[in-house]
Amino acid sequence: MIGGALHTSILKRAQDKSLVEFGLHNLRDYTLDKHKRVDDYPYGGEAGMVLQIEPIDRAISHLKSQRDYDEVIFTTPDGELFTQSVANQLSLLNNIIILCGHYKGIDYRVREHLVTREISIGDFVLTGGELAAAMIADAVVRLIPGVIGDEQSALSDSFQDGLLAPPVYTRPAEYKGWKVPDVLLSGHEKKIQDWRHDQAVERTKRLRPDLL
Amino acid sequence: MIGGALHTSILKRAQDKSLVEFGLHNLRDYTLDKHKRVDDYPYGGEAGMVLQIEPIDRAISHLKSQRDYDEVIFTTPDGELFTQSVANQLSLLNNIIILCGHYKGIDYRVREHLVTREISIGDFVLTGGELAAAMIADAVVRLIPGVIGDEQSALSDSFQDGLLAPPVYTRPAEYKGWKVPDVLLSGHEKKIQDWRHDQAVERTKRLRPDLL
Repeated sequence: MIGGALHTSILKRAQDKSLVEFGLHNLRDYTLDKHKRVDDYPYGGEAGMVLQIEPIDRAISHLKSQRDYDEVIFTTPDGELFTQSVANQLSLLNNIIILCGHYKGIDYRVREHLVTREISIGDFVLTGGELAAAMIADAVVRLIPGVIGDEQSALSDSFQDGLLAPPVYTRPAEYKGWKVPDVLLSGHEKKIQDWRHDQAVERTKRLRPDLL
Repeated sequence: MIGGALHTSILKRAQDKSLVEFGLHNLRDYTLDKHKRVDDYPYGGEAGMVLQIEPIDRAISHLKSQRDYDEVIFTTPDGELFTQSVANQLSLLNNIIILCGHYKGIDYRVREHLVTREISIGDFVLTGGELAAAMIADAVVRLIPGVIGDEQSALSDSFQDGLLAPPVYTRPAEYKGWKVPDVLLSGHEKKIQDWRHDQAVERTKRLRPDLL
């Protein structure tokens, strides 16, 4: 499901350059159930299936026997909100386990006893936590020095200076009558910087006043 | 990059049942550039590459010549925040184009003239918008009736009633000394419903008071 996302484009190159290593682990490989089931009906008769604690505990224990982990993260809509600041923190760690949520839930004892940090990527519900985990990996790994070719590129992102990024334009200078702002074609570096800053402030005030 | 996510598990079954149809389109198929380039340096000399308007305009025009689209959505960190409420709205539409963002940006004229709705999945930056688009697709498609086997399952999610979901548990009733709450094993339906409601309210008050 998410192998393609982790092994394509920028994340693939990061692995090729040995800047990061991803391991995908299937809980079914850790169950003792002969049918490889890892979920079961919830106690109390609610709808939906719930991931069992045993395969999760066995998987985490197996991984921990091979190396030290800084965090065991669980993706869940009621966790701490994932932001650029959380991405920055995680990018400084060495090894992370991300346990992918399940659309109805996992046995709550996993969260109480095995997980060290619960992260939400937003107020919405997914069929599973796989895409959330892939997205966390993507946001974190791109911050590792060397992953993005031009390191300035990450530093001039939205959020890194608390402002939205200013508009960007590329060729052609005119398309169907829609023109690039003159200042960007002026070659006047100071004016360009001032324009970008003004645009960033104006856009942030208008679209995201909460950031100011 | 995201084909795996759209063609696995619940989303795959939704397509097999003809409840949804996904089309993945590569902008490189729409460029007139002989090297199939779709990005170029930004005007004004900033770092990073910017997606060009021409292949995007050509791609969107081609798609629109085949059917009507309700929205052309662009994923960008400064867009409207994606929430369960936005997912609910989008699940009622017929056809949607999601234009995936690019890690430094797209020519701003695309956003001014071709895009109808800008959506952010959160205050963080990704290498590209592909994962954000896959996640939006996942959150929206699972709401289409019939996609999730047990329709109650989506209705009892976090957020659908404005509360976080209560804890869930499954077998075994005791694991390494960690026990399932007695009430869930009691078989007393009224008590179980009361416990769940109390837990949902308590968890929401503690973790997400902003939802109340």
